[in-house]
Amino acid sequence: MSATTTVVILMAMAEEAAPIIGELGLVRNGRLLATPLPMVVYEGCVDDLFIALVVNGVDERFGVANVGTQPAVLSAYVAIQQYNPDLIINAGTAGGFGQRGCQIGDVYISAGSFKFHDRRIPLPGYTEYGIGSYPAENTTAMAQALGLKQGAISTGNSLDKTHTDLDMMGVCDADVKEMEAAAIAWVAWLYGKPMIALKAITDLVDSPVRPEEQFVDNLAAASENLCQKVVEVLHYYTEDGPALSLRHKLPAIYA
Amino acid sequence: MSATTTVVILMAMAEEAAPIIGELGLVRNGRLLATPLPMVVYEGCVDDLFIALVVNGVDERFGVANVGTQPAVLSAYVAIQQYNPDLIINAGTAGGFGQRGCQIGDVYISAGSFKFHDRRIPLPGYTEYGIGSYPAENTTAMAQALGLKQGAISTGNSLDKTHTDLDMMGVCDADVKEMEAAAIAWVAWLYGKPMIALKAITDLVDSPVRPEEQFVDNLAAASENLCQKVVEVLHYYTEDGPALSLRHKLPAIYA
Repeated sequence: MSATTTVVILMAMAEEAAPIIGELGLVRNGRLLATPLPMVVYEGCVDDLFIALVVNGVDERFGVANVGTQPAVLSAYVAIQQYNPDLIINAGTAGGFGQRGCQIGDVYISAGSFKFHDRRIPLPGYTEYGIGSYPAENTTAMAQALGLKQGAISTGNSLDKTHTDLDMMGVCDADVKEMEAAAIAWVAWLYGKPMIALKAITDLVDSPVRPEEQFVDNLAAASENLCQKVVEVLHYYTEDGPALSLRHKLPAIYA
Repeated sequence: MSATTTVVILMAMAEEAAPIIGELGLVRNGRLLATPLPMVVYEGCVDDLFIALVVNGVDERFGVANVGTQPAVLSAYVAIQQYNPDLIINAGTAGGFGQRGCQIGDVYISAGSFKFHDRRIPLPGYTEYGIGSYPAENTTAMAQALGLKQGAISTGNSLDKTHTDLDMMGVCDADVKEMEAAAIAWVAWLYGKPMIALKAITDLVDSPVRPEEQFVDNLAAASENLCQKVVEVLHYYTEDGPALSLRHKLPAIYA
């Protein structure tokens, strides 16, 4: 790999990724992440950024996308091995909280740290380990520049939620509830890779309408909004021209 | 790697693994699964079997073991890459159900398929994907030969359980509740690797005593019982002498 700045975009579902792949003109690279791994990779460039977008692929038994934290871990690991990225972006759809000002179609950028709301381990040290609190890049300047909402993201393996889940999301001070970010953030943290997440809202957690109904109704529109913001974020990182490396904008620890 | 039959044993906690490492005289191999991965590998032989025991290691921020499904996925993946095993054994401790005849200290061997009880995704195809139902080796003959209880194992990322978790364990027809097996089974299934699990019971899910209290009280004794049964299982696979490959005892699909 040359000195080109490399951005890996990790996504769970093909439906979420399709607008971005089209907008950026990314091309499938069939040689990478070979069988039997289900992940699918698309590559291309945005100005001086080399982009590798990894979609988690399909579970061949049930014909559905490999959503959730287990495929997310594997996808993050193999993408880091393959591309040694300068930045990891987890892009996808998510639930939000109407009572916290969230609206369907909003696109949030990660703030604070990445937490789990479904790993309850009430033993000393394990409680905090379960929640995770993996580091996220500071996105405040970018959020202001691009008009993005910032939000704390919490992760769990269910699309629905129990009362206990809601309590734990309160502990996490979550603005956004989704199914992959903290798992990716764990692997990113192990490898010292900076990470941000962009999440487009398909459903309101505090709505009386079931999340799966909202999700199905809003997936396509939210994915379009997500695409627009992912492209803006990529251009933000290159706005000073091709000579400017992404590394110049990252904290010194990664320089 | 030679034609030696290779068994990978995946374990979450050092406390669970210590008796087995001691009993089998396994030696730490510091060159493998290098930094920054937290996993720790011990190697050795049992008759004609080459054994690689992988412990998930410690989270350096909180000083606790990397329990749960996210490290389990990564451990399974890197162990398969490193060792290309003929068999994967997930050994550990777990909860059981008194009303299903389980007692503290029992060691169960996996039966049926490996399921998740905390991945609730109520959309067509995704419900079944969430539960997983990854294949487990048929262990009936071995269970009878070694006097092991057979049980269906369900996996989730919490040590405690909600009413919803209990309902889902019912859907899974679970005898044993633990935190890694189904995640490992997903990776094993991707790579066509036969897998069994051995789980020693530290706590009864349907006891009025909190699981974390039972767990702490019974971890050491359960880990000793687990060690005894892991050793018996390894000897079972070699009981006809060093000339008999493990493959001879596995289904034809793996031969």
